[in-house]
Amino acid sequence: MTDAVKSRISGQHFINGTWTGDANAFNSFDPLSNSQLDWSFASASPSDIDSAANAARAAFIQYRATSPIQRAEFLEAIANELQTDIEAITTAANRESGLPMARVQGETGRTCNQLRLFASTLREPLDAKFVDLANPERAPLPKADTRLSVLPIGPVAVFGASNFPLAFSTAGGDTASALAAGCPVIVKGHPAHPATSELVTRAIEKAIIACDMPAGVFSLVQGTAPQVSTDLVKHSAIKAVGFTGSLKVGRLLADLCAARPEPIPFFGELGSTNPQFLLSNILSDNAEQLANTQVQSMMMGHGQFCTSPGVAIAVKGPALNRYIATMAESIAMLPAASMLTPGIAATYQAQVDALLKNSAVELIAQGQSADANHLTRPTAVRVSADDYLITPELQQEIFGPCAVIVECDDSAQMLNIAAELEGQLTATIHGQDAELAQNQPLIEAVAFNVGRIIFNQMPTGVEVCHSMNHGGPYPASTDCRTTSVGSQAMKRFERPICYQNMPESLLPNELKSSSAKLIHF
Amino acid sequence: MTDAVKSRISGQHFINGTWTGDANAFNSFDPLSNSQLDWSFASASPSDIDSAANAARAAFIQYRATSPIQRAEFLEAIANELQTDIEAITTAANRESGLPMARVQGETGRTCNQLRLFASTLREPLDAKFVDLANPERAPLPKADTRLSVLPIGPVAVFGASNFPLAFSTAGGDTASALAAGCPVIVKGHPAHPATSELVTRAIEKAIIACDMPAGVFSLVQGTAPQVSTDLVKHSAIKAVGFTGSLKVGRLLADLCAARPEPIPFFGELGSTNPQFLLSNILSDNAEQLANTQVQSMMMGHGQFCTSPGVAIAVKGPALNRYIATMAESIAMLPAASMLTPGIAATYQAQVDALLKNSAVELIAQGQSADANHLTRPTAVRVSADDYLITPELQQEIFGPCAVIVECDDSAQMLNIAAELEGQLTATIHGQDAELAQNQPLIEAVAFNVGRIIFNQMPTGVEVCHSMNHGGPYPASTDCRTTSVGSQAMKRFERPICYQNMPESLLPNELKSSSAKLIHF
Repeated sequence: MTDAVKSRISGQHFINGTWTGDANAFNSFDPLSNSQLDWSFASASPSDIDSAANAARAAFIQYRATSPIQRAEFLEAIANELQTDIEAITTAANRESGLPMARVQGETGRTCNQLRLFASTLREPLDAKFVDLANPERAPLPKADTRLSVLPIGPVAVFGASNFPLAFSTAGGDTASALAAGCPVIVKGHPAHPATSELVTRAIEKAIIACDMPAGVFSLVQGTAPQVSTDLVKHSAIKAVGFTGSLKVGRLLADLCAARPEPIPFFGELGSTNPQFLLSNILSDNAEQLANTQVQSMMMGHGQFCTSPGVAIAVKGPALNRYIATMAESIAMLPAASMLTPGIAATYQAQVDALLKNSAVELIAQGQSADANHLTRPTAVRVSADDYLITPELQQEIFGPCAVIVECDDSAQMLNIAAELEGQLTATIHGQDAELAQNQPLIEAVAFNVGRIIFNQMPTGVEVCHSMNHGGPYPASTDCRTTSVGSQAMKRFERPICYQNMPESLLPNELKSSSAKLIHF
Repeated sequence: MTDAVKSRISGQHFINGTWTGDANAFNSFDPLSNSQLDWSFASASPSDIDSAANAARAAFIQYRATSPIQRAEFLEAIANELQTDIEAITTAANRESGLPMARVQGETGRTCNQLRLFASTLREPLDAKFVDLANPERAPLPKADTRLSVLPIGPVAVFGASNFPLAFSTAGGDTASALAAGCPVIVKGHPAHPATSELVTRAIEKAIIACDMPAGVFSLVQGTAPQVSTDLVKHSAIKAVGFTGSLKVGRLLADLCAARPEPIPFFGELGSTNPQFLLSNILSDNAEQLANTQVQSMMMGHGQFCTSPGVAIAVKGPALNRYIATMAESIAMLPAASMLTPGIAATYQAQVDALLKNSAVELIAQGQSADANHLTRPTAVRVSADDYLITPELQQEIFGPCAVIVECDDSAQMLNIAAELEGQLTATIHGQDAELAQNQPLIEAVAFNVGRIIFNQMPTGVEVCHSMNHGGPYPASTDCRTTSVGSQAMKRFERPICYQNMPESLLPNELKSSSAKLIHF
């Protein structure tokens, strides 16, 4: 199958309906064997970026005029084409990410489900539209007829994530939500999975043709040079950016977006330590089970989930010691494993080394030692709450299979940590019903620092649904007023418009007086 | 009455429930007589800003726990206190702005209505809440119960506008919407109306006490130095900024917000030329009436409305010549008048001088000449569409009673202008039903560049209602995904949160299964 994939890959960009570029700039990499694959790819020039952006600008005129039903059919066609080609796509993703085949198959299913969720939301909109009826008799001034709807914001640049080569990448959540909103998309392909991006783009290409969409509605540009990314977000045709990745790169691109002559919104999902608060009674009754659940969750994708639980917080004592002992036993048996990219492995290794050198930190356990440099070991450490609170480095995300156990003197100190938390995507509170009811100040403090507050469940496994929020106060994301997962993600790429005194026959369908979804005032 | 006002004014800041500061830094100014009033005020020091911001941070803990009904009662109490003290407040606003008494009385009524609109929205929320019910049986993974609500974003800094000393100032739309959302507010008082700000703050103070709200829920800091503003937006306790004012100052503060260690949203409403598109048949049938309506609208507040119609666009010919002739006649009779501040007058004068020096521009008419330097003359000019399109300076807002009439060769050129428009708060299309139906590409092009598209009405007079949008693509506002007027303005200061697997008894009221506003999936 790998050869069959190779024969399908041009290594080129897909710009305005055409495959273009010299596929000689960089190669795919196999993280399992720590070696290059013989799949080579082009790197986008400034003029490639300009072509893609101008094509998106031109396509926007036609694409924004499509009906919600037409866009739903387009998204469904993309999902169908992905499933038709799932064997090649998952083969490429498996080789390029090192993620197991079952995982990338499941992720392809999720990617299709996301596309279909947006399609179903377009077919049956959730939000009512507001209409303030005219009142010519009102004194001192007559009241005009005003109706509120939304318009797509314009072409969107999407930066996929290395850790979800399908669901958060080329046809992932950002792309699906932008297309659903009526916005053309330019994906900057993640250099960790360029073949996967190309095959997914070929599925989108078929859907564009089948649905008679404008050629520039979707482009893929590949490359490893930072300039590809910076040229893209600075282009005047781009009106918003969707990003999933590191705080460092995310903040750099966010700053560029803010400094443009016309600033644009940057929706960056930048990660999180996803703290686990363990209340006393549940810890006392379930220390071993909680520890095993923690290890299981932090080992999902070898710890490379945005929602990986990297911190656990509890009051010190015998129950927490049992928890730590169980965790130590469990982690010590875990094998070293490859990570998504050599860069991620090196960063993880450096962060763990720094952690272990910190005199406030005591090692709980590490997984089995590695027989090759590119393999990394799961790690857990313990630290006092006092030290945790005064040491910002301990509070930072370590992307990978690492957990910091924070030992509090008492529940007041646990509350203090909750109140001082940096912004997080999620946090979980583990507690029995009675102790949850007694800890409402803790729950309230946690809620104000997270995008999703969870009870007695682990954070990994983000449900794609209407009521999901995946985002959170900075630095979890760059715009806490939005989600990058779930149907509400498309709102990032819409903006309101008021139609005043518009003749009924010219009103957009959703605002016509016959529409069932109007709320009149 | 003016003396009675003076006896009520301390000239101090209101910080955390206390009046503080030495009232010797600057004086109120009377724009009608072009002279200082003997009302003097303090200027906030860095430690004043720090005190107000820390008080807001502390108050947030208590204020965010208030129920929507409690916040509604607080907003209604502010409105009632404003009305109780309307005589002093309008006297101060009239003296400090030069706006006629009837206007500031009407504006006080609007300010109270805004507060009451948010209160009524809190009492009867418009938005349904989404609930995805649990499904433990789902394969391969069980589905958790997830419920989506919103939380207030945190303390908000508000910068009021000079041109609406009540409705867009101390207790104006930004303050009302932030308080409604559950966010404490710090107002940087506009130096053009410090006494008005103080009297309005005294009304808010009474409401805080009557409603037993935390002292730091509202502070007022006064001052003329830019550092007062920059210290405020850079303070770590501030989580969002509401601003109405010039592009220059707005962009400067927006850039500071984006460059903070924790970037925060900046909601700036920066102005607009509010173009009037005049289609051929209506112009031919109603040239004189359209011209008079244009002049009337652009003379509201001597042209100092965000929605003042500063540009009119039509195909050249006899009908447009009649329109221009009527406008010339009407404008020539208008007196020179004072503006809100000496600075605004000087900027207007400089912009009009530059306009008249531009060789592409032909003067249509100016109002009667001024007998004092601080009075400015209404002005109208004509320019060809060709010159307008290639001259960015002609497309910029001139804040004041000035209109640029753009003469197109044909309707294709008018469409071109619509497509090339910079972002606007509003635009109007004047047309008879049949020609509107024939000009749908024009309507569509205009819609994508404005926040509110109007038919056969003037843009001045922004309705405060549920379906209003006051905002628009940059540079009309810094975040086109939001409105600063209408009930939806409070969404700027909220952010989503997902509650996963939360025990029913602990859920916020709006998410409990008994709530009438849930949509289940």
